[in-house]
Amino acid sequence: MHQTALAAPSSRTRVNRYRWLAHYDKDTIYAILDAMPVANVGYVHEGQPIVTPTLQWREGDRIYWHGATHGRMMKATGEAEVCLTVSILDGLVLARAAYNFNINHRSVMVFGRPEAVVEPDEKVRLLKRFVDGYVPGQWDRLRPVTEQEVAATAILSLPLTEASAKLRVGPPEDNEEDYAFKVWAGVLPIGLTVGVPVPDPRNAEGVEPPASLASFRIG
Amino acid sequence: MHQTALAAPSSRTRVNRYRWLAHYDKDTIYAILDAMPVANVGYVHEGQPIVTPTLQWREGDRIYWHGATHGRMMKATGEAEVCLTVSILDGLVLARAAYNFNINHRSVMVFGRPEAVVEPDEKVRLLKRFVDGYVPGQWDRLRPVTEQEVAATAILSLPLTEASAKLRVGPPEDNEEDYAFKVWAGVLPIGLTVGVPVPDPRNAEGVEPPASLASFRIG
Repeated sequence: MHQTALAAPSSRTRVNRYRWLAHYDKDTIYAILDAMPVANVGYVHEGQPIVTPTLQWREGDRIYWHGATHGRMMKATGEAEVCLTVSILDGLVLARAAYNFNINHRSVMVFGRPEAVVEPDEKVRLLKRFVDGYVPGQWDRLRPVTEQEVAATAILSLPLTEASAKLRVGPPEDNEEDYAFKVWAGVLPIGLTVGVPVPDPRNAEGVEPPASLASFRIG
Repeated sequence: MHQTALAAPSSRTRVNRYRWLAHYDKDTIYAILDAMPVANVGYVHEGQPIVTPTLQWREGDRIYWHGATHGRMMKATGEAEVCLTVSILDGLVLARAAYNFNINHRSVMVFGRPEAVVEPDEKVRLLKRFVDGYVPGQWDRLRPVTEQEVAATAILSLPLTEASAKLRVGPPEDNEEDYAFKVWAGVLPIGLTVGVPVPDPRNAEGVEPPASLASFRIG
């Protein structure tokens, strides 16, 4: 697959500081979004910025998130500009100077005015993708969704047209004259790990975790 | 230590949805902030919400974060209301119904109008706490900070007076009639792990990682 550039970055996605960290290509942005479902959705509610953690998922060139139809976040973000940020912490970067202390990370910032998905069948189709994105095939194993549940679930989406990524990888970057300084420098890697599934004590007899659960990865 | 209530939650920190998840006690809020340095700072810049990941640290009843003195985030948040959110993902909660799919998590939301720390000695004292918070004793091992570096570093702080926490722990919560449904339900634990330190290839000869690095924990 070749890399396809997104639309030219607007002034608000253009990364002003640390320009060398900025990446705008689709593959980079999509890989970060796909690796980390937790997003922080920022919106303005009665003049006040609010940042709400939520779960995002991607289909093609759009991201989606869902919430309670009557919740503050879904009502406020359905009408106004948002900034959705995803970030993954990859390590502590211990430099020779405190000023160069850093973290290795991958982050994406998406701007736009979300659209609500209103058609019930489309909502069901998207929720299936959301659930199956964690555990392939899970949707069809679950107690079927009800009309009331679909109605109580709001889904918002944003096109990935105004998005940027920031990455930092690799060893510390110190001032040239500091490399001789006698202190250990390096990276302490940090990553998300998945543990052993913990069955619900109220599970029906004989049920087994789906085989596809074992392949779940995050980060 | 007994638990001390923060000031009564204001309408914006009062958690409207999922009220049963909301905790306002200091110990809970401080433990989450101390476990996760990555914060998402939301602010309004020319009418647009922006969410910037940054590193926060706590001293007593205040949190701090730093950035480039001339950066967009530090300039914009030094003048206006922010919402700073910290969240830790603890697991996937696989229920019997898609509607009850959830995550176990710990989150904190802090509101307020940040104050800039301007006095250079106080900035140095706070930056030492920041660095030593990751690796105790590290500040004194580093190449000493310069006046220019201190001037180029802006530090903002917020009192933890308007803060709330949300937590979800434990097994799925399904509708009573769904517990007999023949599908595996349970929790897939997720956590942050720290790897083996990777030395900078340009390290001076004979330097060793500080012993306190081994005790670093996150999440």
